[in-house]
Amino acid sequence: MTSGSAFLLAARRCEIAELEELARTGELVGAIGRLVHGLQRERGISNVFLSSQGTRFASLRLKQIGECRQFEAEVQAQFHRLDTDPAQARNGARLFSRVAVVLHALAGLPALRARIAAQALAPREATAAYVKLVAGLLAVVFEAADSASDPQVSRALVAMFNFMQGKEFAGQERALGAGMFAAGAIDADDQQQWRHLIESQQACFQVFADFADAQVLQADLASRDATLAAEVERLRRLGCASRPGPLSTQLSAVWYDCATRRIDAMRQVEDQLALHLRELCEARIAQARAELRDQQALLQALAGEPSYALEIAAPYGPHLERSMVGLLQEQSRRLQAMSDELAAVRASLDERKLIERAKGLLMEHRQMTEDQAYKALRQMAMNQKRRLADVAEAVLSLADVLPAAAAAHNISARTG
Amino acid sequence: MTSGSAFLLAARRCEIAELEELARTGELVGAIGRLVHGLQRERGISNVFLSSQGTRFASLRLKQIGECRQFEAEVQAQFHRLDTDPAQARNGARLFSRVAVVLHALAGLPALRARIAAQALAPREATAAYVKLVAGLLAVVFEAADSASDPQVSRALVAMFNFMQGKEFAGQERALGAGMFAAGAIDADDQQQWRHLIESQQACFQVFADFADAQVLQADLASRDATLAAEVERLRRLGCASRPGPLSTQLSAVWYDCATRRIDAMRQVEDQLALHLRELCEARIAQARAELRDQQALLQALAGEPSYALEIAAPYGPHLERSMVGLLQEQSRRLQAMSDELAAVRASLDERKLIERAKGLLMEHRQMTEDQAYKALRQMAMNQKRRLADVAEAVLSLADVLPAAAAAHNISARTG
Repeated sequence: MTSGSAFLLAARRCEIAELEELARTGELVGAIGRLVHGLQRERGISNVFLSSQGTRFASLRLKQIGECRQFEAEVQAQFHRLDTDPAQARNGARLFSRVAVVLHALAGLPALRARIAAQALAPREATAAYVKLVAGLLAVVFEAADSASDPQVSRALVAMFNFMQGKEFAGQERALGAGMFAAGAIDADDQQQWRHLIESQQACFQVFADFADAQVLQADLASRDATLAAEVERLRRLGCASRPGPLSTQLSAVWYDCATRRIDAMRQVEDQLALHLRELCEARIAQARAELRDQQALLQALAGEPSYALEIAAPYGPHLERSMVGLLQEQSRRLQAMSDELAAVRASLDERKLIERAKGLLMEHRQMTEDQAYKALRQMAMNQKRRLADVAEAVLSLADVLPAAAAAHNISARTG
Repeated sequence: MTSGSAFLLAARRCEIAELEELARTGELVGAIGRLVHGLQRERGISNVFLSSQGTRFASLRLKQIGECRQFEAEVQAQFHRLDTDPAQARNGARLFSRVAVVLHALAGLPALRARIAAQALAPREATAAYVKLVAGLLAVVFEAADSASDPQVSRALVAMFNFMQGKEFAGQERALGAGMFAAGAIDADDQQQWRHLIESQQACFQVFADFADAQVLQADLASRDATLAAEVERLRRLGCASRPGPLSTQLSAVWYDCATRRIDAMRQVEDQLALHLRELCEARIAQARAELRDQQALLQALAGEPSYALEIAAPYGPHLERSMVGLLQEQSRRLQAMSDELAAVRASLDERKLIERAKGLLMEHRQMTEDQAYKALRQMAMNQKRRLADVAEAVLSLADVLPAAAAAHNISARTG
């Protein structure tokens, strides 16, 4: 075999190695999904526990913490299975950096739980701490989706990330609604935030629908309960579409229960997504291996034929030259098509990147915390009735045009 | 140290490993530059040899072949230094696939040379074979520029690729002009192609100027000889801007000499580019290592401090918590900024990708060879007085809108 053939086969082996790594990443994403779900429950339970001055959900909370510890151990094991040999990891720097943030937040979890147990924390503060931890875990999933080198697997990961993010907005909606109903009064700011959470969910689930596999979409459809959906919509209307005024505090438990049933149903879909991802990786690996075997056989056949040294650039003779050139062209074309498709899938992740960049700019130039920066963007979006990504783009383009200091000063003035 | 810190350091180590791999890629690119230059000379010499029925440049040709063999051995050694362990290579599949094309073409080089020695080939056929080989080598450089993970190194590689590609257009211009002057008559199609080669060079050198380091630009400026430039422009005017008619065949040698001096001066700039790339990689690696050491020291200091378990999510106590959060945020922000800058640099490579995709489409749907597809695109661009990339985009967008078969049929009708 010529060294050209050896590199052709090496290119295939690279693809297989990348797919195997993606399969491991898929396992990690699955474990993160289970932990996030557990933490979403723990957040909701802790909220009720704190709001009721410790009279409700005390033992449920302990049980949930036990479950979360198990999910956390699984995620930790997956993190350590991640190859920390720097030469092995693809897109390692960004992924590992996200993992570092999660591990740091997980290290703070026992202290958070102790403060909740001691009721030394307002429900909102507790919720904010869990929201931050979940955001860190979702950022790992995002990075995995953004670095996948196979377009089909990338599609599955984009669908998964958006579903998980939509489910997290649903979890935040559960907490906000439970708090508003429990307070027995409507707050206009909370109502606006509630509407924002509903819109954010819809946007995520739309991207999920655009990228998910037909079988997963079927599972999503099957998981929907029309009666439950109607009840959720009724409570949403009472909570966030009514004029400010008193609310029945009894609605808090009703809302909490409905929202929880809705989120638990989403968990089933997430399982389907994880299953699909695993099957997809396995199928792609099997396919790539079969293609490698075919190519090896063909190249060996070519190498066995006599060569006609006087053909232009045809070391194998005219007939076999066409086979070899065909193989090389086919491989280039296939890799090119994959790369184009991958770019198209990844473009769906650009909106989130815009928002992250705009947040970073506000944090740096206006000395805001991450939370403040996000709230500032969201406020601009709500005031201007524009999409969050559009506001983020406006913020970034202003920063490009104006000098740094002036930009920081003008951002909210111009876009606000 | 917490496992969060361990992953923070692992992220840094990934960056260092990526930079070290880029440094090796830089060596490969340097070796490719030398081989391309040698092959460009061999192409020019072979052209004169064939055009003169073997009376000129016979011994010069043998000498040049000897030099090229040495450059080829260097490139082969670099290819084999490329880690063919699939788990190690980043973007391995595409890079290896390009290398396979080059190795296949190099395997055909002895047969090509034998046919030239036997004068069994027209000058144009010989030129076309060398053009194809050089294109394959430049595609490896393109892939290297497109997969670099460090924005500064990526800029340097983009500058280098564009300079090499511009120089290759200058080499093709040399061959075309020498042939036209030698024929002693002006051909309108050749004139059009000549103007296209001049425009293509200018476009490449503009991107080079946008991305190259100041020191390299200085070297480029210093390498320019105003007298030579004026002579090249005079000959270009005679050759491609005159009305069809007879030309003095003596201009062929004058043109060949001027064009060669111009291309040899470019070779000096390429050396500067390679030197800058090497120094840049070394500086970035040294910087990343120093930052890793600083971070290690800081994390060890943090780990030695007492922790206050009851702070929310603050395993290190409030003061040190801020340091740790600061480190994590700084790293995220830095990686984000790098990733944004990288995306901006890579966008400069998109035009070439568009043209490659449009070519692939024509090859697949109209059963054209690569050369025919390129010529078809170039013809459309010249007829419509539009840029090649714009024509490529039009071809691709038509293919998106129309069904596959109809699209193939309509491409040249609609855009032609």
